[in-house]
Amino acid sequence: MNTRLLPIMVAPFLLLQAAAAETLRPSAEAVDAITRRNLPEFIEMLSMPNDSIKAADIQANAKWLEAAFQKRGFTTRQLDNEGKPLVYAQFNKTIPGAPTVLFYMHYDGMPILPEQWAQKSPHQPVLRQRARPAAASPGAGLAFTPSTASARSGWEDLDLAKVLAGPIDPEWRIFARSASDDKGPIMMFLSAFDLLNEAKAAPAINVKVILDAEEEKGSPRISAPVKANRELLKSDALIINDGPSHPSNLPTIIFGNRGNAVVELTVFGPRAPLHSGHYGNYAPNPAQRLATLLASMKDEDGRVTIPHYYDGVKLTERERSILTAVPDDETALLKRLGIARPETVGGNLQEAVQYPSLNIRGMQSAAIGEKASNIIPAKAVAELDLRTTPGASAAYLVEMMEKHIIAQGYHLVKTDPTDEERAKYPKIALVSLQRGSNAAFSEMEAPAGVWVQDSLADTFAKDGAPSKTVRIRLMGGSVPTDKLVEALDMPFVIMPLVNADNNQHSFDENLRLGHFLDGVRAFTGLLQKPYVASVATR
Amino acid sequence: MNTRLLPIMVAPFLLLQAAAAETLRPSAEAVDAITRRNLPEFIEMLSMPNDSIKAADIQANAKWLEAAFQKRGFTTRQLDNEGKPLVYAQFNKTIPGAPTVLFYMHYDGMPILPEQWAQKSPHQPVLRQRARPAAASPGAGLAFTPSTASARSGWEDLDLAKVLAGPIDPEWRIFARSASDDKGPIMMFLSAFDLLNEAKAAPAINVKVILDAEEEKGSPRISAPVKANRELLKSDALIINDGPSHPSNLPTIIFGNRGNAVVELTVFGPRAPLHSGHYGNYAPNPAQRLATLLASMKDEDGRVTIPHYYDGVKLTERERSILTAVPDDETALLKRLGIARPETVGGNLQEAVQYPSLNIRGMQSAAIGEKASNIIPAKAVAELDLRTTPGASAAYLVEMMEKHIIAQGYHLVKTDPTDEERAKYPKIALVSLQRGSNAAFSEMEAPAGVWVQDSLADTFAKDGAPSKTVRIRLMGGSVPTDKLVEALDMPFVIMPLVNADNNQHSFDENLRLGHFLDGVRAFTGLLQKPYVASVATR
Repeated sequence: MNTRLLPIMVAPFLLLQAAAAETLRPSAEAVDAITRRNLPEFIEMLSMPNDSIKAADIQANAKWLEAAFQKRGFTTRQLDNEGKPLVYAQFNKTIPGAPTVLFYMHYDGMPILPEQWAQKSPHQPVLRQRARPAAASPGAGLAFTPSTASARSGWEDLDLAKVLAGPIDPEWRIFARSASDDKGPIMMFLSAFDLLNEAKAAPAINVKVILDAEEEKGSPRISAPVKANRELLKSDALIINDGPSHPSNLPTIIFGNRGNAVVELTVFGPRAPLHSGHYGNYAPNPAQRLATLLASMKDEDGRVTIPHYYDGVKLTERERSILTAVPDDETALLKRLGIARPETVGGNLQEAVQYPSLNIRGMQSAAIGEKASNIIPAKAVAELDLRTTPGASAAYLVEMMEKHIIAQGYHLVKTDPTDEERAKYPKIALVSLQRGSNAAFSEMEAPAGVWVQDSLADTFAKDGAPSKTVRIRLMGGSVPTDKLVEALDMPFVIMPLVNADNNQHSFDENLRLGHFLDGVRAFTGLLQKPYVASVATR
Repeated sequence: MNTRLLPIMVAPFLLLQAAAAETLRPSAEAVDAITRRNLPEFIEMLSMPNDSIKAADIQANAKWLEAAFQKRGFTTRQLDNEGKPLVYAQFNKTIPGAPTVLFYMHYDGMPILPEQWAQKSPHQPVLRQRARPAAASPGAGLAFTPSTASARSGWEDLDLAKVLAGPIDPEWRIFARSASDDKGPIMMFLSAFDLLNEAKAAPAINVKVILDAEEEKGSPRISAPVKANRELLKSDALIINDGPSHPSNLPTIIFGNRGNAVVELTVFGPRAPLHSGHYGNYAPNPAQRLATLLASMKDEDGRVTIPHYYDGVKLTERERSILTAVPDDETALLKRLGIARPETVGGNLQEAVQYPSLNIRGMQSAAIGEKASNIIPAKAVAELDLRTTPGASAAYLVEMMEKHIIAQGYHLVKTDPTDEERAKYPKIALVSLQRGSNAAFSEMEAPAGVWVQDSLADTFAKDGAPSKTVRIRLMGGSVPTDKLVEALDMPFVIMPLVNADNNQHSFDENLRLGHFLDGVRAFTGLLQKPYVASVATR
């Protein structure tokens, strides 16, 4: 461990504030202090490249994480995953007979395009504050740099020494790849154990941790190592700490998530690129064909027009009322996103994500800009992600899409078309399912959800009244819960901890430090709350 | 001059075969010999990178060209063109009172994507022959590697020494950027002067040459240097040697060409890329919007559906009959292009290119492949080239397109949209005219065309009968004739010399050596044919 730990004193701030004799309820000062003490270690973690394309980078992260967990009293090992190991950690203090909870987080990050970032490198974390202070409010997280949605303007860098001198302003942020998605929650978790350990408090549950190395690639291989280590991972509940909490900044519990089918759609044009002057108006253009095909799949309001795409999706009145209860501020959201009008797949944001989506995540034909030539390209490619839901599996959505493409007059090939196919079929396309996962969904009244909800309501109680919480039926994003849940066969719930405007998957990803502080509190509370595996209907 | 000239004897082959005392009609052996002697020099010329993005590369080419023309008895100079000089050359032997002809060619090349080429570098020329000999026939040029339309299979490399040992097989080819477009014609021209000079024959006209440095960029600045040097360039006719001859390999004369308006169309989405899970079905996707917009511009048959796009295009019955007389083998063409069915803008290929086109030459939104992320992109870009025709100018076509985009509900911006625009307009796009040229067109009975046609019919006569020629009213491609012709105010005609299947603008560009041999013959004949500035109606 080379982490440069600064001599910030933590123990004096550890005050027992709760009535229960066994429960440590850390003071704001204690959480602030442990966060500052661990900030250099967090920066070190964020400095390690973690695109799982590179096995060596991933292995360096895994080694670092093992040491970080060992330091907090965990026994660790790596579970083989074809060179991109899952990191497993088990807390050494066990309570015989007590329920066991498995925490899932991931340490890999999305690919980076460094030139898009305002900072030198996405792996050289930068601390920043707004140039003009924003009003601190429950919705402050929405006010992300209105002019550019990036850190290029409206933000100023903070000196690390100033931040470490404390106290932390909750509106400060740390910018780096994986700051929020998903190394931040790992560091919050470690910090909670620091608080517990230094106060000689202990969790009320047996704690296991699994850290994924390929979440951003859809965890293509996770089933095998999880199944091979089923006994090791066996637990009473699975808690997933990934994704953003609700923009209201209220404690959030999510009962399921969409899956994701990534499809590459290629439309073929002439055998080789052609001079667009000599053959323009004669040789069909594959980019034009792709555009027409994509246009046939959605209407002006964003609704998928592929027949039967939504057929399996059913929402009950009770579910609709839960969706409506989520306190979304869509006016502020639209302003933050920089769009005048949303699509109308659902009546509101929550309802929209209960439906499967069809999103063009990337599209290319030949080149644009200086590399562009006056050609009719030979092919055009769209990368699509189809978010899956209960009632709309990856296989089903891809099947409906293929049928639709065929209905548009296309001949589907499995590889580049042969001369014979080119001579025979005027319209040729290739649909390639890169990876697919199904949605995962837990009943909202099951024990895991109740445990997390009660804990959060208690941890963030104000003036003796339990905190409000936001309950999300199905979040829009995907975590590989289908494979995990299928392999482990245990109830699960998602407890997201990072700010909604964290720019995850894009440039200038960041974590609001106020969310870090709250995340430490959330974990400290949850770890000390006894898990009851059966809950009476409430 | 560092050209490694090989000691191939040329003079013995120079036989006077024609009846006219003053006319050199070189034997096949003489043309073969001069081609082999000049091949190393041609290879040297093709080895110089010539994407006009790089001024230094262009200047190196210009310097080399000056020396090559000086060696053949020309006086040369560079005409300033903002660092990318036009090369001007004037033959030293002048005939007082005789008409003067200005020859236009260009020495810049399209941008390269080296990884697409079968050879090590597009600037390291490779000589190749088909692995299985193809039948030599007038249509042989059509049989370009049916399996891939590239040089990756079906071709084998030739040893330079074998080629230089002679005689040249007309089906051999040289592969390199600009082999056909447009350095090949320059080398044919130089070789014709070698033949004339060594036979002590002289042109029957005064000869001027202008070599463009930015043709592939649309010659954006050519008007200024041409206008500034109008007296220097003053001639009786302009002959443009660019573009492919007819696939029948018959001598070809072209009386005009389409212009080109390059337009960049950007559709804006959310301010920054968004997580497609959390916002898929909610935030509109700009790639989807772009697809729908592009789809609205053309129908399934490739006809532009933008209102009034074709309104100004009129074809007379006489013109249609000339179009129909062109001996296109569309069955073979479709096979070569690898498409089952052409667009139906015109009843045939010739008619199709009399109409303006709307071609997607490049398209991109975010990234595909390994760099793809699960995002809703922030914008999507299509690069379009609109080929212009008489009756459909660049300004007109762009205006019709803009009106159409507005009619689809878009607000057009001139730069990235402001926060206010984002809040106000659901659909925002930017149309940027990168450059635009209009079509150029000469009457088919004007003197320049008659002069070239008579010369070609004579040069390629067989058994005493003049050769058939192909007359093309308007070729599909664009050369900057509108600016040249406007600036110079002189009649012009295009005499293309390279094979139709040369893969110009794409990878594996090549020149069939049979076309090189014929090009040398064509120039040798034309240079010796007196130009008559007025022609009786025939």
